[in-house]
Amino acid sequence: MAMIPFTKGHGTGNDFVIVADPDGTMTLSADQIAALTDRRFGIGADGLLRVVRSTAIDEGTSTPDAEWFMDYRNADGSAAEMCGNGVRVFVKYLLSAGLATLGAGETLRIGTRAGTKAVTLSDNGFEVDLGLWRPEEQEILVRGRGLAVARPGLGVDVGNPHVVVALSSVDELTGLDLTVQPVLDPAPAAGANVEFVVPAEPLVEDGVGTIRMRVFERGVGETLSCGTGVAASALAVRHWAGAGAPDRWNVDVPGGRLGVRVVRTDAGERVLLSGPATLVFSGEISLA
Amino acid sequence: MAMIPFTKGHGTGNDFVIVADPDGTMTLSADQIAALTDRRFGIGADGLLRVVRSTAIDEGTSTPDAEWFMDYRNADGSAAEMCGNGVRVFVKYLLSAGLATLGAGETLRIGTRAGTKAVTLSDNGFEVDLGLWRPEEQEILVRGRGLAVARPGLGVDVGNPHVVVALSSVDELTGLDLTVQPVLDPAPAAGANVEFVVPAEPLVEDGVGTIRMRVFERGVGETLSCGTGVAASALAVRHWAGAGAPDRWNVDVPGGRLGVRVVRTDAGERVLLSGPATLVFSGEISLA
Repeated sequence: MAMIPFTKGHGTGNDFVIVADPDGTMTLSADQIAALTDRRFGIGADGLLRVVRSTAIDEGTSTPDAEWFMDYRNADGSAAEMCGNGVRVFVKYLLSAGLATLGAGETLRIGTRAGTKAVTLSDNGFEVDLGLWRPEEQEILVRGRGLAVARPGLGVDVGNPHVVVALSSVDELTGLDLTVQPVLDPAPAAGANVEFVVPAEPLVEDGVGTIRMRVFERGVGETLSCGTGVAASALAVRHWAGAGAPDRWNVDVPGGRLGVRVVRTDAGERVLLSGPATLVFSGEISLA
Repeated sequence: MAMIPFTKGHGTGNDFVIVADPDGTMTLSADQIAALTDRRFGIGADGLLRVVRSTAIDEGTSTPDAEWFMDYRNADGSAAEMCGNGVRVFVKYLLSAGLATLGAGETLRIGTRAGTKAVTLSDNGFEVDLGLWRPEEQEILVRGRGLAVARPGLGVDVGNPHVVVALSSVDELTGLDLTVQPVLDPAPAAGANVEFVVPAEPLVEDGVGTIRMRVFERGVGETLSCGTGVAASALAVRHWAGAGAPDRWNVDVPGGRLGVRVVRTDAGERVLLSGPATLVFSGEISLA
């Protein structure tokens, strides 16, 4: 049994085990990752971030412009494309370990299975460009335990599928029982994360919109924070608000506050997500 | 912010942060303990075990025969008397850190707020003497989500209060929804942990009884294992089985298997709990 060093970190409560493997010599089976991320028998986390050079991982051939590749794995060991909170924690680790530098006005490129992502410093931590977004055309009805009637939801694609539902009050949001999966009608083939949002009053202040959100992640349940869900929520409320809606948003989730920014380009609108990243502790564990 | 070293361990999935403070110089506030045991923002655990000499803690004056005192704290920072799984993990840590030795046939005494507990080596790890037990006289009706009708429960006092309910099949046990607290009628003033048990078939083999159990801990919810609940469950089934029932029991909980043994003495029946203890990893964290 080899001892491996690790670091534990989180972004607004979405938490990760981080292992450094610059030269890609470490093989981690799905079973080993599930054991490491188990909250009682292992270290415990939502996922694992392996820090590896793009040149040292097959999938890194598609991100040659990024020195570091984020090999993100779900808690069950399966590979995942991207994680809006994970990429900030990944960058925080790179800087802390002296594996990269990032000054004001500079951009650090991170390889992921969803392509290279650009990360910059922001007032609230780090900002990552999630890419282009678009609203879905078909309206979806959402039923949830604690909601008296079905509500219309807006489908939002930000690389993965979301359905965003507006509620009328904070009481309605906090009264929602998300131990039970909301029902979507019609149900998207691959499922979707479902976000419930409530606007702040006033909705917009000093050119910045603010909303509160809770999320049910498909295959997981309610989580403290879902980065792409935060982006989808701000985009949906901005869509509903129509012309003149701001391009900057604060989104309050159970795990903290994140920022969303929309940048208009010739190819369409890009969405950027910003927020904190925290390294909590480091340790050593034996890998069975 | 001081960096403090810690170890993480578990006994059948009941998990603990262990900090060594032999001379009792460390002050940990309830807020600090809640932060350390938070599963996403901290290390994550059901509780914290501070390793301190009996002579270095006020409460240790009542356990002068034990060199080491287990200062057990719940995840919210409140002090707790005893923990059947925690004391095994505590002893495993003492041995691993070279702070104590324990050979075959020897006894290691550990100070707790419930008095001095005697721990020995056992085939399955460590065995701790929980002391005298007694059944309660009043029958309690238990209602649980997933149970068609209310069931009679036996109250068992093993230092803390339990109500044990027999179910008829493994299907009934696994179908039980313990996300919802079972209702007790009449409700004990201080509440009680509720254990649901199913006998193995055959119940007794080679003089050892075997049962399967799930537990709802008051103020916590369903847990993978509750040491005193395991003891209470075996004692209740033994009580129902009547004269000729064995004094040795295996109890299978979601987190693993524990052993229960009854020793008859002039003062009454003593109950002993045995099982594994595992140290998972060690690390350092800054104490805010």
